[in-house]
Amino acid sequence: MTALVRDLTDDQARTALPCKWGEVDPDVLPAWVAEMDYAIAEPVVEALQRAVAAGMTGYPTARVGGPLGAAYAAFAARQFGHDVDPDRVVPTVDVTAGVRFALEVLAPAGGLVFPVPGYSPQLAMAEITGRERLDLTLDPDAARAELDLDHLDRLLADGARVLLLTQPHNPWGRAFTRAELEGVRDVVLRRGGFVVSDEIHAPLVLDGREHVSYLDVEGTAEHAVALVSASKAFGIAGLRCAQLVTASDRLHQALVSAPAARNESWSVLAVEASVAAYTHGDAWLEALRRRLADQRDLLERLLAARLPLARLRPVEATYLAWVDLRAYGHDDPAAVALERGRVRLAPGHDYHPGLPGHVRLNFATSAARLTEIVRRLEVALG
Amino acid sequence: MTALVRDLTDDQARTALPCKWGEVDPDVLPAWVAEMDYAIAEPVVEALQRAVAAGMTGYPTARVGGPLGAAYAAFAARQFGHDVDPDRVVPTVDVTAGVRFALEVLAPAGGLVFPVPGYSPQLAMAEITGRERLDLTLDPDAARAELDLDHLDRLLADGARVLLLTQPHNPWGRAFTRAELEGVRDVVLRRGGFVVSDEIHAPLVLDGREHVSYLDVEGTAEHAVALVSASKAFGIAGLRCAQLVTASDRLHQALVSAPAARNESWSVLAVEASVAAYTHGDAWLEALRRRLADQRDLLERLLAARLPLARLRPVEATYLAWVDLRAYGHDDPAAVALERGRVRLAPGHDYHPGLPGHVRLNFATSAARLTEIVRRLEVALG
Ligand SMILES: Cc1ncc(COP(=O)(O)O)c(C=O)c1O
Ligand SMILES: Cc1ncc(COP(=O)(O)O)c(C=O)c1O
Repeated sequence: MTALVRDLTDDQARTALPCKWGEVDPDVLPAWVAEMDYAIAEPVVEALQRAVAAGMTGYPTARVGGPLGAAYAAFAARQFGHDVDPDRVVPTVDVTAGVRFALEVLAPAGGLVFPVPGYSPQLAMAEITGRERLDLTLDPDAARAELDLDHLDRLLADGARVLLLTQPHNPWGRAFTRAELEGVRDVVLRRGGFVVSDEIHAPLVLDGREHVSYLDVEGTAEHAVALVSASKAFGIAGLRCAQLVTASDRLHQALVSAPAARNESWSVLAVEASVAAYTHGDAWLEALRRRLADQRDLLERLLAARLPLARLRPVEATYLAWVDLRAYGHDDPAAVALERGRVRLAPGHDYHPGLPGHVRLNFATSAARLTEIVRRLEVALG
Repeated sequence: MTALVRDLTDDQARTALPCKWGEVDPDVLPAWVAEMDYAIAEPVVEALQRAVAAGMTGYPTARVGGPLGAAYAAFAARQFGHDVDPDRVVPTVDVTAGVRFALEVLAPAGGLVFPVPGYSPQLAMAEITGRERLDLTLDPDAARAELDLDHLDRLLADGARVLLLTQPHNPWGRAFTRAELEGVRDVVLRRGGFVVSDEIHAPLVLDGREHVSYLDVEGTAEHAVALVSASKAFGIAGLRCAQLVTASDRLHQALVSAPAARNESWSVLAVEASVAAYTHGDAWLEALRRRLADQRDLLERLLAARLPLARLRPVEATYLAWVDLRAYGHDDPAAVALERGRVRLAPGHDYHPGLPGHVRLNFATSAARLTEIVRRLEVALG
């Protein structure tokens, strides 16, 4: 099945991915922003072609449920064994805007706990929503990337009210287990907190592990919302549609009764693409996961051979590796990699302000490019 | 040239316009939300087809200027004689979100003046941005729809800081003249105010009148931002891209240095469609304006014949008529029209809370449908 996932040529990638490939010089290999150098799934292309041929460029319906809700609920049942009410799937333009919307209309006022390192634009989410940001910082020397529940408990006890969870986690590479999420739930319930769970990477859990939505953990319905999307797994993040999922009438009502001007920007074509991905994308997705696991294994082998001092925790999910390069002695290895190696990585301090020596490396590319990326890193950093 | 503008059949419209046609029962004629029942321009369809064939579904570039800025600047020069710096054209997802973004990062804190009746979702904009809303209310009996500058002056003197202008105005149907806008500028300058100018309907100024951007009025550069878009004029509002235009370095810098999570949701396909519309859309647009003027004239004739007590000010711009039906004695004529006439209009009180007897009627449809709409209104209201 792996043949389903087709590598883009450089020229194709430059057209398909105007950010990842368009914002680097032609001699630079891009391994930064979270986008994949693969052709998108045929059923998604076909849905877009049909929609464009029909001139479907008007506003999408604001009616909740409908094809998008049904498609996501069926996908969640098949892929995650998670029972979602299709009528409680609310569209939003993207995950970042959806997180903001949830923080504005669902979450109680008060400090926002954010696991760090974390998805860089979300570091600003506390400020944007008028909250104090409280970092739940991962020790860079920890053997395993785990949420520090005692720390979370102290933060919530000291006045924080909301946890912005990323599950699976970028850039930790973790798919938190049900037991871990139950631990989170216990702390949140004890302290009366709220959870916004960013699950954009849910379909990208590797090696047959299961994705557990925070909403699928018992006792979370009244204090949580999940952000989901076909965008990241199916390579359609530029189209703009994500979904907010709740499991309580009260929270659902708060979402749908908010003023339209807070949440009306999702794209009509993204809805079509998302429905196609959720409905007809399973085979492609399965092939993609195998391919990503292969890429991850290749990355591990390449680093062991060429940059043996690089430290990498197991990547259980996503196509993003958080690489500790402190042993090579550069404060900002991404800058060195760009200048000397012509590889663009995401600088670690974007995800963990103040942390030196780390990068995030996107391995969702061809085997040949990944090999060349690590070869160039060896030259640049070694 | 009018042949360039092709009417959609009912079935085509149901697919192309999921909101306007999809949110009404099959026996209802939709004349509510601001969308046109015409096929979009060929160059726009072709640009979308090319982009989809190339799998262009990744994030759009966040680099400012580039093809979108150049295309808009050239369009503004040709269409409005307005000199725009292409490097000061900043993409945003849509006009509503762009207005919010401008209020959050450019406009000073303080009350928001909003001309009423006004675009309904924007009635909530003051609340969403934590401001007091101060209505600049149009007298429903005024012969001409004009901004009351004395009232604006008092509101700004009493602590309001920002005017959310709509130019051309929906639903007033006005294209404010340069002299009128100079009057606004004088008041705003005197009181140290700020102007967010929503110019989404700029390309839809009819009868050869000129559109004057508020930014094209001398002395406005340091206190104003304009929101522009190809979306409304070219029928691509569901795709999601608008632009913020400034004429000052300070304001431009404030936009581009804001956290990404405040403004990063525009769609890659909407950029392609917008560039095509701005670059290759003039002939279609010219034909569209003629067609809309014809439709407006037809509406006037139909109303005069069938609902002679309806009152309609001259519609200088947009395809939306603000119709005073008070003489027919219904508090909510849109509800009556829907129930008895199976026509969906936009209720006047959505645009002017508390005002009875008004509707907004969208005349961007076929001549046959418009004729049938007014026939049904006669039956329903008469
Ligand atoms: C955890 C996480 N959330 C959100 C996003 C961005 O999603 P969107 O583009 O839908 O805002 C990303 C992108 O990589 C991500 O990794
Ligand atoms: C004056 C005005 N502003 C904004 C909008 C909505 O624009 P968008 O869909 O880009 O938010 C409309 C839609 O009709 C409008 O009339």
